[in-house]
Amino acid sequence: MNEDKYSYTLAEIAEYIGAKLIGEEQYRVSAIASLQKADSHQLSFLSNASYHKYLSSTDAGCVILHPEQEVLFNGNKLVTNTPYNAFALATELFKPVYNHVDGIHESAVVGNGSTIGEGVSIGANVVIGNNVTIAGGTIIGAGCYIGDNTIIDVDVLIHSNVSIYHDTVIGKGSIIHSNAVIASDGFGFAHNKVESGWQKIHQLGGVVIGQNVEIGAGTTIDRGALDNTVIGNGVKLDNQIQIAHNVEIGENTAIAAATAIAGSTVIGKRCTIAGAVGIVGHLTIVDDVHITAMTLVTKSIKTSGSYSSGVPMNKTEIWRKNAARFNRLWKSLKS
Amino acid sequence: MNEDKYSYTLAEIAEYIGAKLIGEEQYRVSAIASLQKADSHQLSFLSNASYHKYLSSTDAGCVILHPEQEVLFNGNKLVTNTPYNAFALATELFKPVYNHVDGIHESAVVGNGSTIGEGVSIGANVVIGNNVTIAGGTIIGAGCYIGDNTIIDVDVLIHSNVSIYHDTVIGKGSIIHSNAVIASDGFGFAHNKVESGWQKIHQLGGVVIGQNVEIGAGTTIDRGALDNTVIGNGVKLDNQIQIAHNVEIGENTAIAAATAIAGSTVIGKRCTIAGAVGIVGHLTIVDDVHITAMTLVTKSIKTSGSYSSGVPMNKTEIWRKNAARFNRLWKSLKS
Amino acid sequence: MNEDKYSYTLAEIAEYIGAKLIGEEQYRVSAIASLQKADSHQLSFLSNASYHKYLSSTDAGCVILHPEQEVLFNGNKLVTNTPYNAFALATELFKPVYNHVDGIHESAVVGNGSTIGEGVSIGANVVIGNNVTIAGGTIIGAGCYIGDNTIIDVDVLIHSNVSIYHDTVIGKGSIIHSNAVIASDGFGFAHNKVESGWQKIHQLGGVVIGQNVEIGAGTTIDRGALDNTVIGNGVKLDNQIQIAHNVEIGENTAIAAATAIAGSTVIGKRCTIAGAVGIVGHLTIVDDVHITAMTLVTKSIKTSGSYSSGVPMNKTEIWRKNAARFNRLWKSLKS
Repeated sequence: MNEDKYSYTLAEIAEYIGAKLIGEEQYRVSAIASLQKADSHQLSFLSNASYHKYLSSTDAGCVILHPEQEVLFNGNKLVTNTPYNAFALATELFKPVYNHVDGIHESAVVGNGSTIGEGVSIGANVVIGNNVTIAGGTIIGAGCYIGDNTIIDVDVLIHSNVSIYHDTVIGKGSIIHSNAVIASDGFGFAHNKVESGWQKIHQLGGVVIGQNVEIGAGTTIDRGALDNTVIGNGVKLDNQIQIAHNVEIGENTAIAAATAIAGSTVIGKRCTIAGAVGIVGHLTIVDDVHITAMTLVTKSIKTSGSYSSGVPMNKTEIWRKNAARFNRLWKSLKS
Repeated sequence: MNEDKYSYTLAEIAEYIGAKLIGEEQYRVSAIASLQKADSHQLSFLSNASYHKYLSSTDAGCVILHPEQEVLFNGNKLVTNTPYNAFALATELFKPVYNHVDGIHESAVVGNGSTIGEGVSIGANVVIGNNVTIAGGTIIGAGCYIGDNTIIDVDVLIHSNVSIYHDTVIGKGSIIHSNAVIASDGFGFAHNKVESGWQKIHQLGGVVIGQNVEIGAGTTIDRGALDNTVIGNGVKLDNQIQIAHNVEIGENTAIAAATAIAGSTVIGKRCTIAGAVGIVGHLTIVDDVHITAMTLVTKSIKTSGSYSSGVPMNKTEIWRKNAARFNRLWKSLKS
Repeated sequence: MNEDKYSYTLAEIAEYIGAKLIGEEQYRVSAIASLQKADSHQLSFLSNASYHKYLSSTDAGCVILHPEQEVLFNGNKLVTNTPYNAFALATELFKPVYNHVDGIHESAVVGNGSTIGEGVSIGANVVIGNNVTIAGGTIIGAGCYIGDNTIIDVDVLIHSNVSIYHDTVIGKGSIIHSNAVIASDGFGFAHNKVESGWQKIHQLGGVVIGQNVEIGAGTTIDRGALDNTVIGNGVKLDNQIQIAHNVEIGENTAIAAATAIAGSTVIGKRCTIAGAVGIVGHLTIVDDVHITAMTLVTKSIKTSGSYSSGVPMNKTEIWRKNAARFNRLWKSLKS
């Protein structure tokens, strides 16, 4: 979609991604595409060995690949031991510039005592509370709300219609996608036995988000009850994730969409949690744990490794028979 | 809730829905209600045979029904072979007019090079980027954000606070409900083994949404990594669905709320996917597949039909016993 | 995070929460913290007996506790039979004031025939339709949209970027968190057999929300098809919950995050539904039911008690063996 907007020589790309160019230094490419779809003005890459069959037929103007695959391709090539990382780096060259205003849009509302750094862009209809600090280079998209006393570090990118409540801290270089909500009230109520109703526990903690965190569209992160909810440096959260109050997520953990984590659970570093996982509250999950899609986690995980739950999909008529037998396992099998 | 705002003769309704009227042509109704709740100024319908017991006692001023049920009701009736479709058509007559401004609200911000068609309504506090095209008859609700180069066809209805990123295409007659997010970044990162962190893969594809698509409140659809995410004509997506990058959904497939579909999965035409289903990435699901609620799909589906996973609900004390035995099946039963 | 903003004598707190003070009446505290983290200027509490080990070492300036634990602590103490409720009440004293404008912000748009009560606060960039009624003391956060004919009672707090469609009723004292959507269209379509497509059933009902309801960030509640969707008094809904059209939820039921409830299901009073639960449509669940996390409910529940589904998490390699055997239960075990 970005063709013709960009044009780089292969020499420029080689330097940017730190790969060795074998081919024409002044040859130009204007976009990135898969091996199957690339044309002669496009850059491609081979990172998964199972795709090397496409090397012989690709029309790509240049291919990023590993030294082991070098001999399989005769055209222009960028050779590196980490072709997928090199491709990731190359996407930086072709990314569109996010449309943002210079300075503070005239329709934006900025509260008293707030400090807006140099080069900050505040979009149309943004509303910023009192005593907010926004450091240099940060971009706030249209229609966002930023509550009182929030501190946003340099080079943060917040897309449109994000809501951030008071007393939130966001580290440098983080990205927040549209319609995410940060620091809404945790779900805290005391049961009132006399009236059979619920008494609100006002949520007095905050949310602290580290550096280089990415938060997906529609994701919600609740503020802590007394202490803070903490998202470590380098954490990547996909869309529509729910992070309850006082959850702590360790550095560089990545979580896929639609996963929900209940209150006060602590998750280690470098974990990878697939989509639609449910994790109940007050658990501890150690570093380097992988959890597969739609797993329900009801106990702490004390050893790194891969964990799963659920049952396999089947034709509904077969599944019904298996499910009926599951329901009688307590009678069918000894305890 | 709309009583007294509308008034139609039965002759008018008969013509609009294409049914045969048996009864008073000039009799007027002002709303639609169920057989049990309708009064004499309301229209009702019988589409599910199990409700025909209500025909004898209903106070409805007129009932839409099938020729086979005609003899069971003595009042005014609208007879058709497809009473449920006729009822659907009749709701068109009683729908409230969505409140929208004439033309472009004075508080809206429209970027450079954007083209706004005839009869387009752009609500208060809408922010539209550069080089956007919005065709005639389209309504954009309050507080929406529309990114650069996006193309919206005729007669599209976008409710309040929707965020649409750059380079999106939306087909004619589509409806997008509030706080949905279209074309946010796909969840793409390369693992950096040296630093144990994640390197962003900028998402260079777009989102193409067909004609007559409906997208529910809070649903998120990510832009493609290199190619586009594609939503076919007539697709209906309920609330809080997550569609990851490069997913393709075939024509007239309908998906219920809270379902999440991971990256690059291709879903066929005319599928019906129930709520809270999880579908992992890089799968292919053929046409005419039905998937029941909360199923986890981890393999491609090559034959049309109904598929399920999960285990039945039970009293927690019984379920615990069954679950404990499930966890030892590998010892209890031969492989 | 709120330290130094507040200061109360223990006598003041004792009176507010209705506890008996044993200690210094004029001693002052400025925040609430857990027993482990509290310092001498902070109030703490003991509600869970398993934490009484922290009593001997806590630095808290005062502790709320039960008469049975009184002897275990020698410092200032506030004694009550319901320490958790007393703590909840105490949080009221320390809650931050939600930043809101006096009156109607100059950038807000208010439609024709709308009535704004005394002391109502309408934030920047709020858009209010025609014939809306907003009663005294209600606060509407920045960027909200309120559709035609909606009625909002006194002392309601609506956070930023909430979308509320037309004809909604919201009871007094309710709280709605950011980016929630109320009264979007229910997912209603008639299948058109001739064209294999879907015909929209316009959703003509509304949403009625009772008193003292709390609705979490990103939660979506659809309007009814013909009748209303009804949320009873005192209901507490966490983040990213999906409530489909014509659902009815009884008084004081609490539902945790990411749960989805399909159309026309009726849920009783005082139920507690954990997170990520899926409940299919047209069911009835009686009062006082508890449903554990990620349960799939496909049948009505006629007796109060606790219900579950799912299978336990395990190491992926063990889980795979169990899952494979589940899939053959129909052959392994008699029906």
